[in-house]
Amino acid sequence: MRNDQREVNELRTVTIETDYVKHPEGSVLISFGDTKVICNASIEDRVPPFLRGQGKGWITAEYAMLPRATESRNIRESSKGKVSGRTMEIQRLIGRSLRAVVDLDKIGERTIWVDCDVIQADGGTRTASITGAFVAVVLALGKLVNKKSMKELPITDYLTAISVGVLPDGKEVLDLCYEEDSRAEVDMNVIMTGKGEFVELQGTGEEATFSMQQLQKMLSLADEGVQELIKLQEEAIGEWADVIRAKAGAAKA
Amino acid sequence: MRNDQREVNELRTVTIETDYVKHPEGSVLISFGDTKVICNASIEDRVPPFLRGQGKGWITAEYAMLPRATESRNIRESSKGKVSGRTMEIQRLIGRSLRAVVDLDKIGERTIWVDCDVIQADGGTRTASITGAFVAVVLALGKLVNKKSMKELPITDYLTAISVGVLPDGKEVLDLCYEEDSRAEVDMNVIMTGKGEFVELQGTGEEATFSMQQLQKMLSLADEGVQELIKLQEEAIGEWADVIRAKAGAAKA
Amino acid sequence: MRNDQREVNELRTVTIETDYVKHPEGSVLISFGDTKVICNASIEDRVPPFLRGQGKGWITAEYAMLPRATESRNIRESSKGKVSGRTMEIQRLIGRSLRAVVDLDKIGERTIWVDCDVIQADGGTRTASITGAFVAVVLALGKLVNKKSMKELPITDYLTAISVGVLPDGKEVLDLCYEEDSRAEVDMNVIMTGKGEFVELQGTGEEATFSMQQLQKMLSLADEGVQELIKLQEEAIGEWADVIRAKAGAAKA
Amino acid sequence: MRNDQREVNELRTVTIETDYVKHPEGSVLISFGDTKVICNASIEDRVPPFLRGQGKGWITAEYAMLPRATESRNIRESSKGKVSGRTMEIQRLIGRSLRAVVDLDKIGERTIWVDCDVIQADGGTRTASITGAFVAVVLALGKLVNKKSMKELPITDYLTAISVGVLPDGKEVLDLCYEEDSRAEVDMNVIMTGKGEFVELQGTGEEATFSMQQLQKMLSLADEGVQELIKLQEEAIGEWADVIRAKAGAAKA
Amino acid sequence: MRNDQREVNELRTVTIETDYVKHPEGSVLISFGDTKVICNASIEDRVPPFLRGQGKGWITAEYAMLPRATESRNIRESSKGKVSGRTMEIQRLIGRSLRAVVDLDKIGERTIWVDCDVIQADGGTRTASITGAFVAVVLALGKLVNKKSMKELPITDYLTAISVGVLPDGKEVLDLCYEEDSRAEVDMNVIMTGKGEFVELQGTGEEATFSMQQLQKMLSLADEGVQELIKLQEEAIGEWADVIRAKAGAAKA
Amino acid sequence: MRNDQREVNELRTVTIETDYVKHPEGSVLISFGDTKVICNASIEDRVPPFLRGQGKGWITAEYAMLPRATESRNIRESSKGKVSGRTMEIQRLIGRSLRAVVDLDKIGERTIWVDCDVIQADGGTRTASITGAFVAVVLALGKLVNKKSMKELPITDYLTAISVGVLPDGKEVLDLCYEEDSRAEVDMNVIMTGKGEFVELQGTGEEATFSMQQLQKMLSLADEGVQELIKLQEEAIGEWADVIRAKAGAAKA
Repeated sequence: MRNDQREVNELRTVTIETDYVKHPEGSVLISFGDTKVICNASIEDRVPPFLRGQGKGWITAEYAMLPRATESRNIRESSKGKVSGRTMEIQRLIGRSLRAVVDLDKIGERTIWVDCDVIQADGGTRTASITGAFVAVVLALGKLVNKKSMKELPITDYLTAISVGVLPDGKEVLDLCYEEDSRAEVDMNVIMTGKGEFVELQGTGEEATFSMQQLQKMLSLADEGVQELIKLQEEAIGEWADVIRAKAGAAKA
Repeated sequence: MRNDQREVNELRTVTIETDYVKHPEGSVLISFGDTKVICNASIEDRVPPFLRGQGKGWITAEYAMLPRATESRNIRESSKGKVSGRTMEIQRLIGRSLRAVVDLDKIGERTIWVDCDVIQADGGTRTASITGAFVAVVLALGKLVNKKSMKELPITDYLTAISVGVLPDGKEVLDLCYEEDSRAEVDMNVIMTGKGEFVELQGTGEEATFSMQQLQKMLSLADEGVQELIKLQEEAIGEWADVIRAKAGAAKA
Repeated sequence: MRNDQREVNELRTVTIETDYVKHPEGSVLISFGDTKVICNASIEDRVPPFLRGQGKGWITAEYAMLPRATESRNIRESSKGKVSGRTMEIQRLIGRSLRAVVDLDKIGERTIWVDCDVIQADGGTRTASITGAFVAVVLALGKLVNKKSMKELPITDYLTAISVGVLPDGKEVLDLCYEEDSRAEVDMNVIMTGKGEFVELQGTGEEATFSMQQLQKMLSLADEGVQELIKLQEEAIGEWADVIRAKAGAAKA
Repeated sequence: MRNDQREVNELRTVTIETDYVKHPEGSVLISFGDTKVICNASIEDRVPPFLRGQGKGWITAEYAMLPRATESRNIRESSKGKVSGRTMEIQRLIGRSLRAVVDLDKIGERTIWVDCDVIQADGGTRTASITGAFVAVVLALGKLVNKKSMKELPITDYLTAISVGVLPDGKEVLDLCYEEDSRAEVDMNVIMTGKGEFVELQGTGEEATFSMQQLQKMLSLADEGVQELIKLQEEAIGEWADVIRAKAGAAKA
Repeated sequence: MRNDQREVNELRTVTIETDYVKHPEGSVLISFGDTKVICNASIEDRVPPFLRGQGKGWITAEYAMLPRATESRNIRESSKGKVSGRTMEIQRLIGRSLRAVVDLDKIGERTIWVDCDVIQADGGTRTASITGAFVAVVLALGKLVNKKSMKELPITDYLTAISVGVLPDGKEVLDLCYEEDSRAEVDMNVIMTGKGEFVELQGTGEEATFSMQQLQKMLSLADEGVQELIKLQEEAIGEWADVIRAKAGAAKA
Repeated sequence: MRNDQREVNELRTVTIETDYVKHPEGSVLISFGDTKVICNASIEDRVPPFLRGQGKGWITAEYAMLPRATESRNIRESSKGKVSGRTMEIQRLIGRSLRAVVDLDKIGERTIWVDCDVIQADGGTRTASITGAFVAVVLALGKLVNKKSMKELPITDYLTAISVGVLPDGKEVLDLCYEEDSRAEVDMNVIMTGKGEFVELQGTGEEATFSMQQLQKMLSLADEGVQELIKLQEEAIGEWADVIRAKAGAAKA
């Protein structure tokens, strides 16, 4: 039994509230239990210098935590004057993952800025960010389609992320809360499409290692979690759900 | 008539939601119409170097906006590697104002960190921050009193802030929204105590000036607004309202 | 009696030496007692990006202190690699104040850079900076008029700044020196035009508050001081004094 | 056939030259074909603040490339004044991986600084860095054992890293050179112990995805590569090879 | 004939005004023609970490120019957030030179901070800074001797700096003004003691070279200039002149 | 006798290995005893802004040390976020020296980036850098000539640098190793052309001084060393040696 009574393959309560902030083209408040992240997607009508003139778009992400999103207060990165390695790693991961399911050739010379701001943290902030950011991006691009600024929704499949890990008792579990995450021997973030393909896989045994068999079990738990999350994303994006399912073709289920 | 039909002396709808984030000692989400600010107060058991060994405490504040709190996206200050002059001005103002109503000699060698994070902006973010931060600080210190870590609530009076200004038509108005603020010829932030004394007064005529008569009118509007805001603060702090009223002694009203 | 025997409404000895440094278009050494500030105005033939192509000009100010302008040495801001919040606040105030009396539409696509460098500090450096900077800007723009690069002097009125405050004994005083400033309960900077209108008002009760009555008294002292300072500015700008008086129309006196 | 005629499961020529630089406690020049990295391990007799007084050690890594290690010159990170996200990601990965096979409790209050400086790059610099850094760390710690400053070699197993990937033709390959890496649809870094357990797994499909079947194939190629690399590490560490084999217990082969 | 009619071995008018700023222990305004530098020496009662506990002192220097010290305005280094290479070179040179004539063992665990701030520049700012800084340091240390905080003046000899160079017509000249300096083929800064020994020699042929014969001529001109400068330093330091002459023993002349 | 048995006028073993790294246009590993520096020259087809449109080229240099090039580990400058004053001084010196022997008018609108990275340090790293950089630049420019991108080699003479100094026993010596350098009373870097003219001369007596006679002796030792170094440079540049000799005209010897 886990400290919050969940089964090993049980997600925390996940909710996705859309149109959370009024200015962004796409805005979502996603919660995985006590982890709460505001995911805003902004559309800018130009691309970074390395892409100019190619008729292609770009997606870039930024991630931050409010100083008191955590148990003890963290110094604000703007005060320190630099972004930590952890933050950089996470925002690179979010951007890279989203680029795998958005057809950059079809968004024109636009940049989608994704801002993931954690207002309360309890483990799994990076996977919650990706799962919420996908919804924010769909809503933002959907608005462009509705305004006829774009011909069709340039999304090729769902994108969902979840954490899995191995607890000190050797048990593989899905969706670790902070208490579990801080004790876990192995921590893995799995980012998958609706078809069940991997977009990114990051498994880490900090001061520990893991076997092929443990890897298999973790991936299987992740797959279960991802199916549930996609259902929640479908509800959140409403009218666009069928469009993406159709695009993604023969979905796994 | 103002663009949102308000009277010149009418506040926007103001709400104060307490315990908004779970980790901080005091946490508030304050809204002035579409302006929404998370105000978190954290207690740290040590003081900055210049105060060590004096048995005295300190209050310091930080202010930030989510990149897409505004109509168009702002570059994150952590990415720029430095905090803007505007941000510095605001966070210094918040800290200074709070220090006027907290008895620093009575909080012991502790620092109260106040974080004001604007998640949606529509004018008046600095005054909303101060008004909300006061509540967060009371809740945080109240917790210490309840836990017997502090003998009594070291708050000497209410603290409330509101903006007033002069519109291009020469009309003085209370609580400017962004649309008004961007057109206003004079912009003044008034920070007052429950007794109606000034803590801070900042009036600016960007590319304009104002007369003594206009100043009087603006201060009178501010006074009206402050009385209403104090009532909302009283509701938010519940059990501590009477304590503060008593301490502040003969209140203005 | 004040510690330097001045009356409550008495300025320190104020002098304005023009053409202090040879390279700038306008250069002034202003002294308020032992406070000495070099104010240089430089004209650059282009504007910041946000104003390009609008046929309009800009004024921006920078403020600094020599490390040993003060009793104990301050670390140089260039060595720290960042400008302090106090410096930012002051330089934003200087720029904003000057923009209130310079007709930016008439200076063309030019930037006026104002540099206020405190070589010796004894309280009131920001108000001395503004008072001196006004003279430097008039001299710099006057040179353009004399060279026929500009049709007329684009100055709409005088600009003068002075500090007032409340000492611990409850006495309101004009033009605080450092010793008074460090003890004062209330500190207010008043920036006024020749017509006696306010450009900026910043009153602060650090760990204290002030009443409406105290505010009135301080503003009245400030008004007295401003009238004297304008006379000194008139002498310093020589040929341009009448031009500005005329422009400002019916002056207060 | 690959562009350099290698089989899909064939490593480039790998060499490990020990005692490359004279000052560091452990120093190695490792080459994977044209990729050349200097890996230096330095022992410092203190630990970072968060570990002080715990009788435990730490390993931290830094990674950099000479500006002209690559085809076109990169701006030096010291000139830019900040370390890129890519660099941070890599140095965090190197440190974390090494900490999985060094018994930090047994190295005492010491920090092992690992510096990986790429002098020539042709793909796989991060995996070469880890593979070489392991050897440098063993040599540095071995020196302490030989000097009797440490009782036994605090290494629990071999540590080796290799890249695998999927080329555009769908072929899985081992040890990608730069030309392959820049074309690859999937790029995976596998860090393994001598026993064949995973320390870290990072698979990325930049603008692409990969299936469970492809993952299996890549992991199997990685396993083959790792076995060969361990043999080269054994030769490089000489006297310490048997010690580590013994410690790691029943090795996979 | 030079552009300002000086002979090749003729200094510009040099003046040294002492007690220029009131707070520093030693303060000097030195002018070499239109080059004007404020040199302040501050005594701090502690040393940098690398010297603590050795009973020895330190001298460190900082150099800066007001933005409009020059013909066109320079961006302030505090705004750029970093100190330029040129500034670093100059401040290292000033500190190193002063350390050659101050007996660091005799000043106790104190740091002498020397601040050289150029308020108007016309060539030779670094040599003027050194020549003025020496006077400021003597005055500051002299005050300590007079207050009995130090037994004797810990200065071993005079320290003077001057520039020499080769103009495009091949003529060697002393004390180049800006106009000459910008045209010069060779530029040399000579820092000498009262005994005529070299403390520092920096000769540079930017896009040019110089022969041994030219070197000899330049050094001979420098020697002439230095003798004159020492006389001016002697007048400026008054009571301390004989003390230093005595210490320096048999002076050259 | 010196600590490594060398005569006062004896260089350490100097070797120059060309084509050390494969990507740069010119690449050299130069060793002066245990001092080893990689010197890479890169050609970029554009110039810095201040030179654009003048048909002229530029040479700029960067210098760095691997953290463990020295006896104890230095913090990486990229981690500190800024380049030290020492590094700036050295890289400015390298660039300036090279510009004295390269005809910038003849290289067209190109920038030559010279990177000197010290992988092992034992004194004299800046002079080794210049001596090696010259060879790298000749090789890089020679490649352009061979590819017909440039009509002739735009080098006007050899460029060589060597250190000389005065040891505590008063002995002048050539080419100081680290042990000597750290004890030396005077340290001088001499940069000379093949014709025996000075390009740069930097003599420093840190906490000491030197006489004209000592200067003469040091310059004479430097001249001896330079002649030997030029021979090694000639061997390294092969086919280009005669071209440069011819250009430099009647060489000294």
